[in-house]
Amino acid sequence: MTSIDLNADLGEGFGRWRLTDDEQLLTVVTSANVACGFHAGDAATMRRVCELAAGRGVRIGAQVSYRDLAGFGRRAMDVPPAELAAEVAYQIGALEVFARAAGSRVSYVKPHGALYNRLVRDEEQAGAVVEGVLLADAALPVLGLPGSRLLELAGKAGLPAVTEAFADRAYTDEGTLVPRGEDGAVLTDPQAVVERSVGLARLGRVVSRSGASVEVRARSLCLHGDTPGAVDLARRVREQLETSGVRVEAFA
Amino acid sequence: MTSIDLNADLGEGFGRWRLTDDEQLLTVVTSANVACGFHAGDAATMRRVCELAAGRGVRIGAQVSYRDLAGFGRRAMDVPPAELAAEVAYQIGALEVFARAAGSRVSYVKPHGALYNRLVRDEEQAGAVVEGVLLADAALPVLGLPGSRLLELAGKAGLPAVTEAFADRAYTDEGTLVPRGEDGAVLTDPQAVVERSVGLARLGRVVSRSGASVEVRARSLCLHGDTPGAVDLARRVREQLETSGVRVEAFA
Amino acid sequence: MTSIDLNADLGEGFGRWRLTDDEQLLTVVTSANVACGFHAGDAATMRRVCELAAGRGVRIGAQVSYRDLAGFGRRAMDVPPAELAAEVAYQIGALEVFARAAGSRVSYVKPHGALYNRLVRDEEQAGAVVEGVLLADAALPVLGLPGSRLLELAGKAGLPAVTEAFADRAYTDEGTLVPRGEDGAVLTDPQAVVERSVGLARLGRVVSRSGASVEVRARSLCLHGDTPGAVDLARRVREQLETSGVRVEAFA
Amino acid sequence: MTSIDLNADLGEGFGRWRLTDDEQLLTVVTSANVACGFHAGDAATMRRVCELAAGRGVRIGAQVSYRDLAGFGRRAMDVPPAELAAEVAYQIGALEVFARAAGSRVSYVKPHGALYNRLVRDEEQAGAVVEGVLLADAALPVLGLPGSRLLELAGKAGLPAVTEAFADRAYTDEGTLVPRGEDGAVLTDPQAVVERSVGLARLGRVVSRSGASVEVRARSLCLHGDTPGAVDLARRVREQLETSGVRVEAFA
Repeated sequence: MTSIDLNADLGEGFGRWRLTDDEQLLTVVTSANVACGFHAGDAATMRRVCELAAGRGVRIGAQVSYRDLAGFGRRAMDVPPAELAAEVAYQIGALEVFARAAGSRVSYVKPHGALYNRLVRDEEQAGAVVEGVLLADAALPVLGLPGSRLLELAGKAGLPAVTEAFADRAYTDEGTLVPRGEDGAVLTDPQAVVERSVGLARLGRVVSRSGASVEVRARSLCLHGDTPGAVDLARRVREQLETSGVRVEAFA
Repeated sequence: MTSIDLNADLGEGFGRWRLTDDEQLLTVVTSANVACGFHAGDAATMRRVCELAAGRGVRIGAQVSYRDLAGFGRRAMDVPPAELAAEVAYQIGALEVFARAAGSRVSYVKPHGALYNRLVRDEEQAGAVVEGVLLADAALPVLGLPGSRLLELAGKAGLPAVTEAFADRAYTDEGTLVPRGEDGAVLTDPQAVVERSVGLARLGRVVSRSGASVEVRARSLCLHGDTPGAVDLARRVREQLETSGVRVEAFA
Repeated sequence: MTSIDLNADLGEGFGRWRLTDDEQLLTVVTSANVACGFHAGDAATMRRVCELAAGRGVRIGAQVSYRDLAGFGRRAMDVPPAELAAEVAYQIGALEVFARAAGSRVSYVKPHGALYNRLVRDEEQAGAVVEGVLLADAALPVLGLPGSRLLELAGKAGLPAVTEAFADRAYTDEGTLVPRGEDGAVLTDPQAVVERSVGLARLGRVVSRSGASVEVRARSLCLHGDTPGAVDLARRVREQLETSGVRVEAFA
Repeated sequence: MTSIDLNADLGEGFGRWRLTDDEQLLTVVTSANVACGFHAGDAATMRRVCELAAGRGVRIGAQVSYRDLAGFGRRAMDVPPAELAAEVAYQIGALEVFARAAGSRVSYVKPHGALYNRLVRDEEQAGAVVEGVLLADAALPVLGLPGSRLLELAGKAGLPAVTEAFADRAYTDEGTLVPRGEDGAVLTDPQAVVERSVGLARLGRVVSRSGASVEVRARSLCLHGDTPGAVDLARRVREQLETSGVRVEAFA
């Protein structure tokens, strides 16, 4: 029987501001990417989300980011590798306190936003992130795009490299994401997102923008939680996966 | 044979800015209060100081603070207890990564600046800091003033409460610190600081502002590292302590 | 004919986060308290709100605050007067650029959150805020509570002191606000808020918590914009004021 | 008689931290690039530096930067143009308050660090900075490298474009700066710096890294103030310029 992990970004508020419906998303996903304070996520929110996640048996991951609250971590930054490595470790350590206090632990790392995108190709920053993860824990899985420098370097360093796919993004014929900003980069039709999720989980394939069937092997599926209707869509995705005989569970 | 711990604030730079001569101070002290990023201390500095401290066998403590880079943690803040507890735990966790990566660990917690002063009497905030320490580690010693609410509540919660004294501060007849801002609150004569250190370590007594000999029991002596001549003075204090038959070593 | 100013806090988002429905509130109020970046309000948001306000003929005020994004300016801080004065001026100057670029200007100053509350009684901080306003503009009106130290010192310094009242807050028999946290401090019944607004504007009186009619003279009425239904309520208040023969217009 | 402007970065501390010897540098330079709070420069420091500069008749310029205290503005960031334009205007406005309160005004804008470097070639960000300057003041001179996109776009927008050169940097045969990080990029021999300054001011020429004499036309010379000996070197440069018959004065 096929299985798939569902991950989503959680705890992306800051102080007075909220973004994600953490409580509801935690009823759907199997892995929670918890913001660690650099692009979002104050300490009290991190604690609360860890308690909620642990209480529901949802795995906790560190959603590490550039230090950029004003830009929500969405602005690429030329952070020198030594600083970036230390900042990644700092964020993981901060989250680890709350995960452990809740009876769980940080079980994986997933970079956020502009850092995530940059690590697809930037060898220097990918190496720095891997170094930061190693500082925190030499056996911590790293979540990223198939073929990314991040997963390549993580694997070389002995860290489990976990591939993920996006149910609401268009893919090229090469199996890479159509960049945001290009027409049709983001799927908005809920039914299309649900079907794509099932195809990714069961067959490891998606229909590309040009209509071709391309292979996209992923052990986790990323759902978005910061748009209206996001929770409902996430729920539909999970239901349809289960109806289709896919077991929804955290990656091994 | 009497023994005393010497502690100092380290790693109090931020990004481009430096304040303390960490390398030199680490040749003198036995406990390093490492800034954790809230009043000072970026991630790369934390990593470096932990490596230096671990390499020299100096114990690492988390110098937790209000979230206030602009004010260097010296402005009292009415932080709600739940936020304060989480922020304390966050800082300890962040530092723990670097301590462990360096082969050491966070061995105690010492609040910084305005938070330190507030915890002398503020029960609510003292309780919050204790809660934050417990979130991180239920056996972590807490460093503070004798008679402070912080140490009282730490003790009640089962955390080792470690008293400290200041070699360069004037004391009242009640054995409390003369508030900064009052005349003569800070001793500037190096010889007086050295003698006071020996008196505190050997006899547990200081001469108060009014000339009385008062009891001040402390297991650790705080040295300051952010003034010109601070390192030389710290070195003289240590030498005189050892010459006087006091063993300088981390508190048990 | 009686007239009253309606003011509300606007632009209280930061980066990715939004809080207030600025567009809608600007159709109701006559004075916009624009967040200046210290508790909320990034530069792009400030620019946008100033353009919207200027376009609608709504007056622009600087909503100055403690430097505390994580606490949304709601945590009292012991900021030394020289720092506070400079920070107030800094915020006013930053907003002035956007007000002028939009063809308007900063026409008043209103402190936010914990700073607002503290200035009721704290002479030192009230003096610092007045000094900060004077640095920016020696003729800028200051909005605050009747009887507050802020308005007293502003008046002494030659700054126009403008009183305001709150339509959704309970009052004591002395005409002061019932502190948040006490039972019934905030009125939640829309009809009660509407009626109180009319009473404040027409008669300068409110019914206190104990049932007495007390005098509360205010030239501006503060409406809240950060709760569900806030915009609708604000609209009802304005309509009822106008129906009752009160002219809604910016204070002279 | 030839004349040249001398500019330096000032006020680059933050809160507890200091970097530049503002008092001494203000006895040497004719233009002060004052940090505006984004990479350095708290409000109280800005006020103080403006008062000192105005008191000495030194012109005040806004040293605008990416929002990056942790990186001191030295990490290139992909800030969207609308955000960058607003952030530039925000910084200028904040500084303007203190310049005016001191009886002066913001008389030019000079980008800092990674932003400065990026504006040599990045058309989008250069356009955003120009837009930000225009928001603040449609006649404000902009200081930058000869041939940079910044100066080109500033000129097109009607802003005075002022060229500057660096007395302590190596130049290529094309008259551009040898990138930091390359061997010999920064001149450390004081005498060489002094001679280069005179050559730049009197002849508009420097000897390139390869030994060729190349033309570098600049109306301002940038001196650095954040290294040991910087103030002495700045003083020697100024003295030698005056001895060589160059009038040291703010650019027209």
